[in-house]
Amino acid sequence: MFLQNCWYVAAWDTEIGRTPMARTIVGEDVVFYRGEGGAPIALEDRCCHRNMPLSDGRVIGDNLRCGYHGLLYDPAGICIDVPGQPAIPPGAQVKSYPLVERWHWIWIWMGDPALADPDTIPAWDCLDSAEWGRSPGNDSTPLRVACHYELSNDNILDLSHVAYVHENSLGSPGLAQFPIETERRDDGVEMIRWGYDLDPPPLFVKYCGLTGKIDRWQSSTLTAPCHCLVDVGFLPAGSGPDGRDSVAGPRLRVPISTTPETATTSHMFYCQTRNFGIGDDDLTATMRGDFLGVFMEDVTILESQQRIFAARPDAPTVDINVDAPSIAMRAVNRRLIDAETGQV
Amino acid sequence: MFLQNCWYVAAWDTEIGRTPMARTIVGEDVVFYRGEGGAPIALEDRCCHRNMPLSDGRVIGDNLRCGYHGLLYDPAGICIDVPGQPAIPPGAQVKSYPLVERWHWIWIWMGDPALADPDTIPAWDCLDSAEWGRSPGNDSTPLRVACHYELSNDNILDLSHVAYVHENSLGSPGLAQFPIETERRDDGVEMIRWGYDLDPPPLFVKYCGLTGKIDRWQSSTLTAPCHCLVDVGFLPAGSGPDGRDSVAGPRLRVPISTTPETATTSHMFYCQTRNFGIGDDDLTATMRGDFLGVFMEDVTILESQQRIFAARPDAPTVDINVDAPSIAMRAVNRRLIDAETGQV
Amino acid sequence: MFLQNCWYVAAWDTEIGRTPMARTIVGEDVVFYRGEGGAPIALEDRCCHRNMPLSDGRVIGDNLRCGYHGLLYDPAGICIDVPGQPAIPPGAQVKSYPLVERWHWIWIWMGDPALADPDTIPAWDCLDSAEWGRSPGNDSTPLRVACHYELSNDNILDLSHVAYVHENSLGSPGLAQFPIETERRDDGVEMIRWGYDLDPPPLFVKYCGLTGKIDRWQSSTLTAPCHCLVDVGFLPAGSGPDGRDSVAGPRLRVPISTTPETATTSHMFYCQTRNFGIGDDDLTATMRGDFLGVFMEDVTILESQQRIFAARPDAPTVDINVDAPSIAMRAVNRRLIDAETGQV
Repeated sequence: MFLQNCWYVAAWDTEIGRTPMARTIVGEDVVFYRGEGGAPIALEDRCCHRNMPLSDGRVIGDNLRCGYHGLLYDPAGICIDVPGQPAIPPGAQVKSYPLVERWHWIWIWMGDPALADPDTIPAWDCLDSAEWGRSPGNDSTPLRVACHYELSNDNILDLSHVAYVHENSLGSPGLAQFPIETERRDDGVEMIRWGYDLDPPPLFVKYCGLTGKIDRWQSSTLTAPCHCLVDVGFLPAGSGPDGRDSVAGPRLRVPISTTPETATTSHMFYCQTRNFGIGDDDLTATMRGDFLGVFMEDVTILESQQRIFAARPDAPTVDINVDAPSIAMRAVNRRLIDAETGQV
Repeated sequence: MFLQNCWYVAAWDTEIGRTPMARTIVGEDVVFYRGEGGAPIALEDRCCHRNMPLSDGRVIGDNLRCGYHGLLYDPAGICIDVPGQPAIPPGAQVKSYPLVERWHWIWIWMGDPALADPDTIPAWDCLDSAEWGRSPGNDSTPLRVACHYELSNDNILDLSHVAYVHENSLGSPGLAQFPIETERRDDGVEMIRWGYDLDPPPLFVKYCGLTGKIDRWQSSTLTAPCHCLVDVGFLPAGSGPDGRDSVAGPRLRVPISTTPETATTSHMFYCQTRNFGIGDDDLTATMRGDFLGVFMEDVTILESQQRIFAARPDAPTVDINVDAPSIAMRAVNRRLIDAETGQV
Repeated sequence: MFLQNCWYVAAWDTEIGRTPMARTIVGEDVVFYRGEGGAPIALEDRCCHRNMPLSDGRVIGDNLRCGYHGLLYDPAGICIDVPGQPAIPPGAQVKSYPLVERWHWIWIWMGDPALADPDTIPAWDCLDSAEWGRSPGNDSTPLRVACHYELSNDNILDLSHVAYVHENSLGSPGLAQFPIETERRDDGVEMIRWGYDLDPPPLFVKYCGLTGKIDRWQSSTLTAPCHCLVDVGFLPAGSGPDGRDSVAGPRLRVPISTTPETATTSHMFYCQTRNFGIGDDDLTATMRGDFLGVFMEDVTILESQQRIFAARPDAPTVDINVDAPSIAMRAVNRRLIDAETGQV
């Protein structure tokens, strides 16, 4: 069961063009292409005649022609031509999906089109801002991860894992010993951890020449069902929480959105943005490679977890303190899904 | 559910020899070999002792010895030797299947052997006739296609797909706009389309040097459950239907038989035969390669369709005019299968 | 359904060290490592927090730390540290398994630890004895075989298959014509076949220069559920059973234990031991390679059988004389499993 009436990230802007592109979103096969004017279009990826995937067809103007018998669909999914006969059979149409192109990502609405409000897309303007330097993830295509999307949410909401999974890149010895604060919201959850008087993490020594002890924060804000904004930063030791917005120090804002593909697979979209070296193309390339390595460490973790959850769905588990944000996330998602399906 | 009391194409004649060959037909594992005199033999591919596949055994004279404990089976499937003991246990036998070797193909009867009448094999003598030049398909082994066999029947009965799937080899622009005629029969269905004043298709420009406008026909005759004879030809424009048998022009007769392997996979047997360049070995080789390419275009289509039918068995579909022959084909097959299973 | 209260071979001694090693035994995922003093340790391969496999973690002293959030487990499976919080949540523990390291193999007890009695491990001291020359199987890791473990038991208890499966290495023409004797025991079964006045098998001509006719025996002793000791030997023709222990001749004792991984896959552990050329390293290497080939012939057989048993679980089978030991083996295993599950 997935939330339907919400926006999901469907693709990077560069993935969609005049050649049809197939992608499965919350279990539905969707075909994407751009019309003559460049507008992105999304249709059900299935000819209503004999189930041929439309993604094997050809774009003609603003329309898409099936590659088997030539049925032609307009951007609303209406069949407007059946070769060899003048009349269009009743019911010859497929589903079309509202899309919004914003900040280099294509957002799709899988539920009732009448409810699709672009204002509910997360306000992630750092994805396309002169004040933030971008390092797009994984060569501008999502990472495909063989796990339920909420396992990825867990990973991002519990940044204590940095100490073990990313020890040699992002970790500071002792960081996991500091407690987190959790703030529950109607539409999600936010967590923050402050660690004090720590060694700087290896990657930021490399990027910014950090020396001496630091204070650092890790925060993650989830908007249901799967949109996370990670915000982390590093200050001279002693700056503390009060210095977060007043003291200069390197900071990242990293939108991460894990779109369900199926119940056991997901598309992970992410992009690093930074407040330092903004025009530095070499740094952009370096960070892109480094963080791909970091994310692949997470992928390994998530797929291992998924394998055990699938094999032993009833195995007992225990909760620990750092689980508060992910427990809150699951509660919000369940409440929203139940409301949508009338199971309240 | 497959029709049992009918002939299926099991193999090319060259595939069967003194080494056992395994193939699954309508869900049953069968082992094929030739006896000392060359006669093809087919048995259940399973030793009745401990389920070892007999296809891993060895041919001894007319008999087949299991490779595990040495049980020996005669061509009727009767166990005639158990090493180490004088008596044969009661019930030690496996199923044997009636076979007919005809026109380079081996035909198998999967149902009641008492009903196996060789006269009901389709009269496809073009497969071995001095009047027709042969280009056997795919190096004399069937194409394995991951689809239900009726999707392949659909493909062959609806030659309007040539305009989209085989546009650059067999298509004539505008051909799909001409209507088809459908003739329903007790044991199958026949369709024909005539197109007039068209450009010749690229492959026949190459083979026969066709120039100027042409009239062309496409016909397909299906004998239940899966035997199709495609007959196509090209005449100077203006010759029309009356010229079909009187005006000289290049013509193909192409038997295609799609034998079910399982509910979702099939073996496709086909052979081009032509009325031109009959002794021309270079042309034979060229056509063999060209048409393997054409058939692989169909395989791609069929496997894509199968994938969607499997994922969304209840998705609604609409019918169009060119579906009449395939709707008739399904009705005949259902009627015959229901009669056989007593569900009339 | 597998027997739980029994020892299974889990690993070669050389497979387990300070890096965690994952292996599935009777359907349970287990992680193995050695403590600081070298003692082997086995835990459930699943962190009780969020199901991360512990085999992706790190050994710290005698303990194992999860690679995701750092929970630390002691050799009894008790969680003794949760980073970031002082208290350990109630129930934070995983299963631990009794192990015995004996004769180069690691033996595991999957059932009630209170019942684990090392004295019930088969007395296979030939695996580590100065009187027997060892050729460990398959480079000291088990062969993984895609079959139920009882199919492997069958194979070892019915050595008549040597005549067909290993004809060119271990067979003597005519050997399969000699009858077997079967002795049923409470905890297993023993079979023996004597063959007289036979040609020596090709491998022993190579190893020992056997010439002239021989008498030979094949015996196999199974201890439930899956521990087999094969004992075979070759004497000058005329020596007969009375010469088994008095006449010098080449002899092998081969422990083979097929540990269930799942219902359809197994780990096969084996080691040849011989009474000739005991210190001859070249012979050891030669026999190791030759017998890996022999065992791979069995693997091919077993996986083919498994495939047919899975596809046709209800296909009728017949028994022959040489099945007596394997029928007895199944009866013992069923009786023990039923007793354990209270289904007596």
